[in-house]
Amino acid sequence: MYRGILETVRAQRPLVHCISNHVTSNDCANILLAAGASPIMAEAPEEAAEITAMCNGLVINMGVPNPAKIEAMLISGAEAKKRSLPVVFDPVGVGSSRFRYESAMKIIENVRPSVIRANAGEVAALLNGCATRKGVDNDGETVPDRCMQLAKDTGAVVLCTGSTDVVTDGVNCFLLNGGSELMRLVTGAGCQLSALTGAFVAANCGDILHAALAAAWVMNHCGEKAFLRMETFDGNASLRNYIIDAVCNLRTEEMEEMEYEVLL
Amino acid sequence: MYRGILETVRAQRPLVHCISNHVTSNDCANILLAAGASPIMAEAPEEAAEITAMCNGLVINMGVPNPAKIEAMLISGAEAKKRSLPVVFDPVGVGSSRFRYESAMKIIENVRPSVIRANAGEVAALLNGCATRKGVDNDGETVPDRCMQLAKDTGAVVLCTGSTDVVTDGVNCFLLNGGSELMRLVTGAGCQLSALTGAFVAANCGDILHAALAAAWVMNHCGEKAFLRMETFDGNASLRNYIIDAVCNLRTEEMEEMEYEVLL
Amino acid sequence: MYRGILETVRAQRPLVHCISNHVTSNDCANILLAAGASPIMAEAPEEAAEITAMCNGLVINMGVPNPAKIEAMLISGAEAKKRSLPVVFDPVGVGSSRFRYESAMKIIENVRPSVIRANAGEVAALLNGCATRKGVDNDGETVPDRCMQLAKDTGAVVLCTGSTDVVTDGVNCFLLNGGSELMRLVTGAGCQLSALTGAFVAANCGDILHAALAAAWVMNHCGEKAFLRMETFDGNASLRNYIIDAVCNLRTEEMEEMEYEVLL
Repeated sequence: MYRGILETVRAQRPLVHCISNHVTSNDCANILLAAGASPIMAEAPEEAAEITAMCNGLVINMGVPNPAKIEAMLISGAEAKKRSLPVVFDPVGVGSSRFRYESAMKIIENVRPSVIRANAGEVAALLNGCATRKGVDNDGETVPDRCMQLAKDTGAVVLCTGSTDVVTDGVNCFLLNGGSELMRLVTGAGCQLSALTGAFVAANCGDILHAALAAAWVMNHCGEKAFLRMETFDGNASLRNYIIDAVCNLRTEEMEEMEYEVLL
Repeated sequence: MYRGILETVRAQRPLVHCISNHVTSNDCANILLAAGASPIMAEAPEEAAEITAMCNGLVINMGVPNPAKIEAMLISGAEAKKRSLPVVFDPVGVGSSRFRYESAMKIIENVRPSVIRANAGEVAALLNGCATRKGVDNDGETVPDRCMQLAKDTGAVVLCTGSTDVVTDGVNCFLLNGGSELMRLVTGAGCQLSALTGAFVAANCGDILHAALAAAWVMNHCGEKAFLRMETFDGNASLRNYIIDAVCNLRTEEMEEMEYEVLL
Repeated sequence: MYRGILETVRAQRPLVHCISNHVTSNDCANILLAAGASPIMAEAPEEAAEITAMCNGLVINMGVPNPAKIEAMLISGAEAKKRSLPVVFDPVGVGSSRFRYESAMKIIENVRPSVIRANAGEVAALLNGCATRKGVDNDGETVPDRCMQLAKDTGAVVLCTGSTDVVTDGVNCFLLNGGSELMRLVTGAGCQLSALTGAFVAANCGDILHAALAAAWVMNHCGEKAFLRMETFDGNASLRNYIIDAVCNLRTEEMEEMEYEVLL
């Protein structure tokens, strides 16, 4: 099945509208091209709806936010919803400011993203604002618990990255190990995964859960291959290039190596 | 002649004002430095005219547009016109939204760019808006036909990239083959060529047509050299670096390898 | 002592708020990660104070300015001052427009940066606006003279990069030779040093002068190592990656190789 998910990306070459941030937009565009998709970056409210309307999917990345970009996110999100296009939301640093938090809540409530791609801290910050919760510091609560709760609260598939990745729709819950610890030193590795997930769900919108799981595995798998390629003097800058290169060279049959744990 | 064009870039080290976009601005700056030019990036209307006034050329790139940047493009374009500085216009994604289309038309009408660097789709979208045309779907019309028409309509040299590149001033028309198919997987390869063209015309403003032709050939030539350098695990991220590296290492005598077809 | 400065960066992993520019923000984020620090990029006035408040230091980079970013710089600067956080100011291109010059003056007057990281032209442009000066064209005045004057006028440590770097607090003055000439072909090498300096002073806020000196030496040292790593086809794009890689692989004991000249 997972091989077919990548084959569909390669065959359909989905056009993905990214509302992005300047720190990582170049890498996001290159990883989309590497995967076989096409990126369009646009963030002005003046053109947001039209750009989304011509695309197969939307990726909303909240890094380096400003009010005009948030407005564009809401407009594009509404257009995507109208057209039943899958939307990936990456609430970058949502716990860092009221502006990000309130913007994220508006996006979740109005856009109802198909996938929320975040880290554990961002999942916790988002949960704090969801109706059915009283706080994130409940004793003994695990990351998968929180991800499942967020999925139930929002209707989104939650893809939470960390030393173990969690992918859940609130009913099923999968765990992925792998990747390289060094990926934490590559700025925007999470943004890149969000973009990649956008391509995978755009081309496989009938099965968002498994498309997101496949994207997360591909990122880990390519991170591992990139790490193995590193030589004596290589550091995080080379690793960044090697990850994108590995996505570019990924053969569909490699998807058959995909392994994950079914928690629920 | 073409060797002299590159020698002039290297000797004059033109300062090029780029109104750019965040997806590709780093690569554009590095390719300008590689070519022997100096980039200045500025996009606020508050400083646009002053920055242009101290430069030898202007590159207007419409990727990721917003109203303030469009305003800066018009201000800088007017300043460049006043000072007879060459202007390269890259109408990124002009067919994707009314906002881009109307902005592009304003820029063409008010700034009268020296060079329009685009792909075939963008040329077609621009033609639709030019006075002497009734539509782009005329049967049997070739890309060179359209480029020549756009050149006549706008007074600009048109540099249209594709599997065959077209460079025309509306009277003469040259075709370039070469480059690597894989360059399509490098985000902003077109933006980089637009920046490079800015350096070439800034240093050779007496012969815009041949300066643009030389820039297009250099990009293809460096793309080919970059492709030949690729090893087993390299993909589009490494190719991106290798293209800029190849421009950095380009020797002026390599310009004597330059070949093109004279269509008219 | 200098070894301890790097060890402290590695141990404390300071969180550095960067108000940055889209040409170099990716490289700045990756060099911070390479050094052992963590970047947060934010530039909206709506969240500037909150982001600064959670960080250990602030880097204000004036490249590609616009009014909203300048406002964010002033807000974040005030928050940093209130919390006694070190602030590095990089007045990119301050001599290029009145907008940049006036913005820089506001930042210097209101924020009182801990470090001004600039090149010789920017130091001269800033001096022109400082109270105790009548102009920058005083005969026989050297770069160290100007840097010391700027340090006295502003209360900042001045780190001025060039073929010889100058680091001064207005009383002590150190000179650093080294680095690679080719670093001038890497866009944003100065921005990267400003970011790196932000990490060094954030983790060593009790000794800004020597932390800035150490950061400048690290950049030169890593530039030299990156240059030595270059092979036949490598150019400025590869050099850019190699510099960041070298910071990533920097061992604390290498700091013992640090050499500089004490001018005063």
